[in-house]
Amino acid sequence: MSNAPELMVEIHRGPLAESAHTGHAVICDDSGQIVQAWGDPGKVILPRSSAKMIQALPLVASGAAQAFGLKTEQLALACASHQGAPLHVDAVNAWLAELGMSDDDLRCGPEVSRDKALKLQMIREGKCPCQAHNNCSGKHAGFLTFNKHLGGGAEYCAPDHPVQREVRELFETVSGMESPGFGIDGCSAPNFATTMEGMARAMAWYANAHTRPDTLSKAAAQLVEAMIAFPEHVAGQGRACTHLMRAAKEPVAIKTGAEGYFVAILPERGMGLALKITDGATRAADCAVAALLVQLGVLDEADPEVQRFLCPPIHNRAGIEVGRIATAPGFP
Amino acid sequence: MSNAPELMVEIHRGPLAESAHTGHAVICDDSGQIVQAWGDPGKVILPRSSAKMIQALPLVASGAAQAFGLKTEQLALACASHQGAPLHVDAVNAWLAELGMSDDDLRCGPEVSRDKALKLQMIREGKCPCQAHNNCSGKHAGFLTFNKHLGGGAEYCAPDHPVQREVRELFETVSGMESPGFGIDGCSAPNFATTMEGMARAMAWYANAHTRPDTLSKAAAQLVEAMIAFPEHVAGQGRACTHLMRAAKEPVAIKTGAEGYFVAILPERGMGLALKITDGATRAADCAVAALLVQLGVLDEADPEVQRFLCPPIHNRAGIEVGRIATAPGFP
Repeated sequence: MSNAPELMVEIHRGPLAESAHTGHAVICDDSGQIVQAWGDPGKVILPRSSAKMIQALPLVASGAAQAFGLKTEQLALACASHQGAPLHVDAVNAWLAELGMSDDDLRCGPEVSRDKALKLQMIREGKCPCQAHNNCSGKHAGFLTFNKHLGGGAEYCAPDHPVQREVRELFETVSGMESPGFGIDGCSAPNFATTMEGMARAMAWYANAHTRPDTLSKAAAQLVEAMIAFPEHVAGQGRACTHLMRAAKEPVAIKTGAEGYFVAILPERGMGLALKITDGATRAADCAVAALLVQLGVLDEADPEVQRFLCPPIHNRAGIEVGRIATAPGFP
Repeated sequence: MSNAPELMVEIHRGPLAESAHTGHAVICDDSGQIVQAWGDPGKVILPRSSAKMIQALPLVASGAAQAFGLKTEQLALACASHQGAPLHVDAVNAWLAELGMSDDDLRCGPEVSRDKALKLQMIREGKCPCQAHNNCSGKHAGFLTFNKHLGGGAEYCAPDHPVQREVRELFETVSGMESPGFGIDGCSAPNFATTMEGMARAMAWYANAHTRPDTLSKAAAQLVEAMIAFPEHVAGQGRACTHLMRAAKEPVAIKTGAEGYFVAILPERGMGLALKITDGATRAADCAVAALLVQLGVLDEADPEVQRFLCPPIHNRAGIEVGRIATAPGFP
């Protein structure tokens, strides 16, 4: 399947496509086989935050989520790259309190809230961002919960810590291959490498989880349901994951990752999708995932909520529309 | 010269180059001929802000700069994409006052200052950004000065306004070819298209301007001298243009443009360089221009001020070094 044409997104201004992004995408079916591909399915990648529903799998599969009485919203938050809006930050702080823990127990590092109103308010009030504002803080609250269940040490992000050893084992199980290594993510957790095909196969495994009776599959199905039920917890206002999940004509879990990554889980079709923009650009990844889901019939091309990611206008500083982002002719 | 290998910059994390950027670059000599090229020299591009020293050429060549007694710093500012730091904003406001004009006469639109301290101060004080904070406000003060000299109408950004007609004519003169069209820039001025080769030829024309006696060449040489004399006015603290001009072992004018653009003017060699990252990423353009200037012997690879753009580390939110940006093996 190598050497299929890459997907392409163009940045139009005046008479020119002044910039262009290319990338890889793979769609797998319920048997884990590739049904459609762009670029190189064998390309080794770091899925970054698009792997969060895998990093949250031990939390549920171990029974920790149930033992600590986690709500569905919390499971969605464990899979989230959130905006750090009050909705997200308050929920994480409440979760930490339930664990008898505080912001200091997180290891994700502080991040300025991506919620504009909260960010400006904090600057005006002279407040520094906390670790709870980090877009990964829900995932880390999940790690802390699983770790408390295990009785592991405080440094739960170390690659050889029991939390991360379990994440790696399940990551390899669901992707159906050994991970060739890891990088340290923006939030300090190890991020395990796989291929484009491995990631699409993992998402197809999630998409079919609701049809299987084993504990691991039940845990995966619970996480998919949580993401679909609480799209605003998974990302937030203005973000592609949230708006495209809401706009979808059928249930779909959509999750972005840094450096131009996206995955989608389609439970009604038993299909999984993985997408990587080679240069890592979010503007192209947002457009490409919308285009692929339009092509599959999951999204309606004419829906304004889809168009804002599929073919957004570019406005300049005087507010004039000067260009547009769009898929290149022939893609998808 | 088509189909030379493209330049490539990689984003390393853990065992992987997780993202990669490719691009085009052309170096022309004093005869305007290509001496070295990567990618496609015939690629049509919008040079964006890397064309500012051309957009400022009518201001000087017309005699307007002299008639209004512009200082060298102001000529540097006319070629600048500045940070909107107090240094820049105060100078633009003083310039507008000299013209008997105000922020309202600018047409670039308001932009939040890119100077972190000023930005935070303005948020705390509840102040809105002005047009003078726009990174292009020096160029626009130059347009206003030229326009006052011409006696043109207030809408100096309209493509058929005498200011922009003169910019286009000189743009075509120095690039040695007809412009195939234009886009509207972030600051509302038309940005004229050319080829990679056309832009490198234009920069070589600037590099040799100091050796020619005609009025246009003298004006160009004055602008190059101004950029080299006032590198902080051209961009600002933390920016590649400013730091690399300061670090250079010989006089060089370096100018970035939006969407991954860079040009360099090397007066001692009579050479000009143009560089475009296909996907428009600044992180890759900063790295690639540093690498090309190291290869030419203009920059010292071991200089920490060069390394911060040539091979910057990537730190995560906990402050851990997790990766690095670097040119791909074999480039340049």
